Amino acid sequence: MAATKSPIVDIHTHVYPPSYISLLKSRSSIPYIRSFPPSSSLRLVILPAEDTESTSRGRPVGAEYYEIAEKIKFMDVHGIDISVISLANPWLDWVPADEAAEAARSINDEVDRECAKYPGRLFAFATLPLSGGRDVIVREIERLKTLTYMRGVILGTTGLGKGLDDPELRPIFKALQDAQLPIFLHPHYGLPGSVWGEQAGDYGHVLPLALGFPMETTIAVTRMILAGVFEEVPELQMILAHSGGTLPFLAGRIESCMEHDGHLKAEGKLGKGRKTVWDVLKKNIYLDAVIYGDVGLKAAIQASGEDRIMFGTDHPFFPPLGEEDEKWLSVETNYEGIKKALGTDTEGAKAALGGNAVRVLNLSI
Amino acid sequence: MAATKSPIVDIHTHVYPPSYISLLKSRSSIPYIRSFPPSSSLRLVILPAEDTESTSRGRPVGAEYYEIAEKIKFMDVHGIDISVISLANPWLDWVPADEAAEAARSINDEVDRECAKYPGRLFAFATLPLSGGRDVIVREIERLKTLTYMRGVILGTTGLGKGLDDPELRPIFKALQDAQLPIFLHPHYGLPGSVWGEQAGDYGHVLPLALGFPMETTIAVTRMILAGVFEEVPELQMILAHSGGTLPFLAGRIESCMEHDGHLKAEGKLGKGRKTVWDVLKKNIYLDAVIYGDVGLKAAIQASGEDRIMFGTDHPFFPPLGEEDEKWLSVETNYEGIKKALGTDTEGAKAALGGNAVRVLNLSI
Repeated sequence: MAATKSPIVDIHTHVYPPSYISLLKSRSSIPYIRSFPPSSSLRLVILPAEDTESTSRGRPVGAEYYEIAEKIKFMDVHGIDISVISLANPWLDWVPADEAAEAARSINDEVDRECAKYPGRLFAFATLPLSGGRDVIVREIERLKTLTYMRGVILGTTGLGKGLDDPELRPIFKALQDAQLPIFLHPHYGLPGSVWGEQAGDYGHVLPLALGFPMETTIAVTRMILAGVFEEVPELQMILAHSGGTLPFLAGRIESCMEHDGHLKAEGKLGKGRKTVWDVLKKNIYLDAVIYGDVGLKAAIQASGEDRIMFGTDHPFFPPLGEEDEKWLSVETNYEGIKKALGTDTEGAKAALGGNAVRVLNLSI
Repeated sequence: MAATKSPIVDIHTHVYPPSYISLLKSRSSIPYIRSFPPSSSLRLVILPAEDTESTSRGRPVGAEYYEIAEKIKFMDVHGIDISVISLANPWLDWVPADEAAEAARSINDEVDRECAKYPGRLFAFATLPLSGGRDVIVREIERLKTLTYMRGVILGTTGLGKGLDDPELRPIFKALQDAQLPIFLHPHYGLPGSVWGEQAGDYGHVLPLALGFPMETTIAVTRMILAGVFEEVPELQMILAHSGGTLPFLAGRIESCMEHDGHLKAEGKLGKGRKTVWDVLKKNIYLDAVIYGDVGLKAAIQASGEDRIMFGTDHPFFPPLGEEDEKWLSVETNYEGIKKALGTDTEGAKAALGGNAVRVLNLSI
């Protein structure tokens, strides 16, 4: 693909590098990869709600999950110049504490080597050894600058086990701020299964994926706002998956509930200098454009600004509906959303399709 | 207030009529009203998350909660011509089965009498005796036509105890469809407390109110969509509180997850004739404008259409911040949202401020 002046960059695109696949194959509870007789084909099960007969146990796992050449092929088919790849959920959240440091080093090194195979076309978000404890995590953050292609870190919502408002995480956020590494915040845990009701078995993966994921992201960031993280770590940069979950839509309500909360006022927890939810959206947050339509995307754009939106695909998830489809409906839908919201060839569209990612993530070597 | 050609109608405004207040005062667990010594002032506690010291135990309950004259005063201050009042959560969900029928009749009759005190200025959504079982509920729905001011019913998300996708609810939805009574869907139960994390005690009511409420609404409606309610009861009309929770923002993702779900496809659960989420938003759903800003409101308008948006205040909740404030910030914020999204004196603004409610709810006597 020829280089263009306004490159298309996919910042939400996952890989399970071979060493991670091996780890998953060796496990017998989620996350894991195995076959379910009588079928001999391998399936990837990563969510508790998927680990039942009613959902056909996860999804088939093919070369698009671990072969970097498949990523490049997918990029070429969809006109994507650069991908910022990240390990898919659930990352290393489940790794025993004493194996975390080595697992993260090994995966980050492997991903960096994969990027090196296609110079200029691949960059990556690193994975943190969260279960290893603060010192191990901070050491890995500092080590990342020795890798050529790392441009941030991917993070789930559990942090050290207590969520992202946990005061123990503050030094880690500061280390990321100091290293100028943005966090790509991605959901995995969804909501407690009870909220989906007794009929949930009839609905496939839809409820946990379509609602659980974005609600999890929204809750995690709102808890950070309420905990004062963005005052204490003022330059922390976060890229939120799925256009912020539901944060742009709920920002007004969150702000109103904060302003009207007698308890927060009485405790003096809403200082005069606090950042509003709108401030955080415009100063600390970037939003991907993985939202499958212009209705939500326009809200995301208005909430954070045209200079803070970044195209993404969620590859290799949401694969094409027909076996013969070369282009993926999910990708086309997200392209179409940007076109409807920002037009074609406008400065805003170019920024969302790649310009913002190139600028913010410094995508040149 | 003089009648105007484009009236302003508040469709999201609550009352606790005196008989309901008496019921709450007689209780010792939520929902309840009592004083907490050393203070002698009465407080209303309706949410589990509020029933702790950390939130000052609910909210003070004054005349604005039960005096209909206070509602009229509030309307006059804010330029509201007509209010469609509804019993506030948690309605009669908690009433013993054998008391439900009588409680609903008594409350609905009382609310109807309150409306009669100010002819043309007050209408109401009725309360259903949900714990009384199907026959009791359907009888009350049929009885509502004997009341002068009832224009729909308010409903929470539990239904008969199993949520709104419960097949047992289908005859009740059909009865409402046949009676041409829209459902005003309103949250109350939020999400399981575990999602708010260990620091939640520091955040007042913000997380359950700002996030739990709209997420509960979104989950309830999405479960109805997945269960096929809107195909089976095609003329069912629903007005969703808080601009649909987060449904307009997530509609694209829900639709994409449905289209990509191998299990749903394999089971033949996505028939060719199914309504998409977008269809449901434009054919069965109305959205209030209680969203405190134009970012979300614009998404709501685009999702359902300018002819399906209805102004609301959530009175008597979100009271003014200062003791001396005549106008309520929460109301001003929602007025401002409509002005920014739809302009002043435009057809769209007039429709959202009252025209849609007058047309859909037939607000004339």
